[in-house]
Amino acid sequence: MAVIGIDPGTALTGYGIVNEREDGSLQLICYGVIRTESKTRPESRLKKIYIELNEIISQYKLDSGAVERLFFQRNTTTAISVGQARGVAMLSLAQAGLTVYEYNPLEIKQAVAGYGRAPKKQVQQMVKTLLSMKEIPHPDDAADALATAICHLHSRKMLTYISI
Amino acid sequence: MAVIGIDPGTALTGYGIVNEREDGSLQLICYGVIRTESKTRPESRLKKIYIELNEIISQYKLDSGAVERLFFQRNTTTAISVGQARGVAMLSLAQAGLTVYEYNPLEIKQAVAGYGRAPKKQVQQMVKTLLSMKEIPHPDDAADALATAICHLHSRKMLTYISI
Repeated sequence: MAVIGIDPGTALTGYGIVNEREDGSLQLICYGVIRTESKTRPESRLKKIYIELNEIISQYKLDSGAVERLFFQRNTTTAISVGQARGVAMLSLAQAGLTVYEYNPLEIKQAVAGYGRAPKKQVQQMVKTLLSMKEIPHPDDAADALATAICHLHSRKMLTYISI
Repeated sequence: MAVIGIDPGTALTGYGIVNEREDGSLQLICYGVIRTESKTRPESRLKKIYIELNEIISQYKLDSGAVERLFFQRNTTTAISVGQARGVAMLSLAQAGLTVYEYNPLEIKQAVAGYGRAPKKQVQQMVKTLLSMKEIPHPDDAADALATAICHLHSRKMLTYISI
């Protein structure tokens, strides 16, 4: 069961692939960020995100995708810009035949660190521990993407328990 | 000089292609909307928009694309959803090698109806007249897309005059 988590953004799109072994333990497959230049035209930045994400997705046998559900208090211009990158990421997943699962920031913190108000650093520390990494994953966007993937694997397990 | 205008949305994405003849007059090529079902998964709706837009774009020899620049007062959830459809539309244009031009609602009304505070109906009436249509284009999303395409053709002409 391999899942790709994505933290979309126009300048930085984080991604992280996590596999769940048969014994239930988690295995880090890969993680990183797709960077685009601010001086590049918006449509070219979206194209770069799409192409690089397609390349990453095509390299692994994945079962599903997970993306953070976004909330913006005020800045709707940022919301549109992040929405554009998010749309392109969701398209890339859909074209690979993957269902996209969406999680609130609260659900992600809850699933990874055990409680919804956990500080960012603590969530990152848990990602490091759960994936047996030597260091906290950098940058934040990649760590967030890994946390989203872990959240999906944990939530899925919970649902299985409940259905039993 | 043929331009596609797009009014992106998750449920309805309007499009309209307008050609400028050598004498400067405008010619309607086609217009319509891409509809997606609300019960369908968000990623599948984006995929449908992308595939249908690609089909439309591939049928014509286009010079550029024009998309309305969006502003939302409060509802950031809507902003993200529209942003996602917008991102997919911009990607489709970029992959066809088209540069995407963005215009404010004010610029579009100004270019089509002559003043920035023109009511919607008046803008639609001008679209009908400028494109020698028998009726006002329906639905509103298609009319908005045509207005955006006309705005780009007019703005481009203005820039040419200025540069002379």
